[in-house]
Amino acid sequence: MNLLSYLPFLVILETDGAKAIGAAIAMAVGGIAPALAIGMLVGKAMEALGRNPEARAAIQTNMILGVAFAEAIGIYALLSALIIAFVI
Amino acid sequence: MNLLSYLPFLVILETDGAKAIGAAIAMAVGGIAPALAIGMLVGKAMEALGRNPEARAAIQTNMILGVAFAEAIGIYALLSALIIAFVI
Amino acid sequence: MNLLSYLPFLVILETDGAKAIGAAIAMAVGGIAPALAIGMLVGKAMEALGRNPEARAAIQTNMILGVAFAEAIGIYALLSALIIAFVI
Repeated sequence: MNLLSYLPFLVILETDGAKAIGAAIAMAVGGIAPALAIGMLVGKAMEALGRNPEARAAIQTNMILGVAFAEAIGIYALLSALIIAFVI
Repeated sequence: MNLLSYLPFLVILETDGAKAIGAAIAMAVGGIAPALAIGMLVGKAMEALGRNPEARAAIQTNMILGVAFAEAIGIYALLSALIIAFVI
Repeated sequence: MNLLSYLPFLVILETDGAKAIGAAIAMAVGGIAPALAIGMLVGKAMEALGRNPEARAAIQTNMILGVAFAEAIGIYALLSALIIAFVI
């Protein structure tokens, strides 16, 4: 078995273990960008409200719309994690 | 089997395990950019609304258009994850 | 067992070990972005409140809304970690 002696990285996983790792990756990595997006867009909404509070109606409506679409991508990630964990 | 001795990375996975990892990568990595895009474009819309609330109609229409197209890419990622999990 | 002596990295995981690693990744990596998002958006709310305290009602309402959605993604990560640890 000399062939293994040069391998720098070897991972052996059984199927249930791979599901655990897969579900973890799906939710963990899939949740990064939606959360950052919410942080960015709500932060900008805060700035805009501080500068011009009279625009509250327009800012609030569109902020909620943007947050909902970003959150949707986070929910897709959760859905993927649940499917990986329970359905595959 | 000398050819394996130069592999820098070896992962041994059964097929169901590979499906789990594949679906996870599809959704997790595929969702990063759409979410960031939504964060960026809605953030800029917030700025614009704070600076000029009278432009609300124009900003809102185009923001929704942009968000819908970005979201579509996130939905493609979800679709790919579902196909990897259920169809392959 | 001379073959192992040259491996710089070898991971062999049984299923329970993979669950432990998976739950750790799910919560650890999944908690990064929601926390940063809350930091960003509340930080911007502080700036806006410092510049224009009369906008407090609008800023406070929308800040709480944004924080709740970002926190939700952190809770999805916790949920995934619990599912990986206890249910799979």
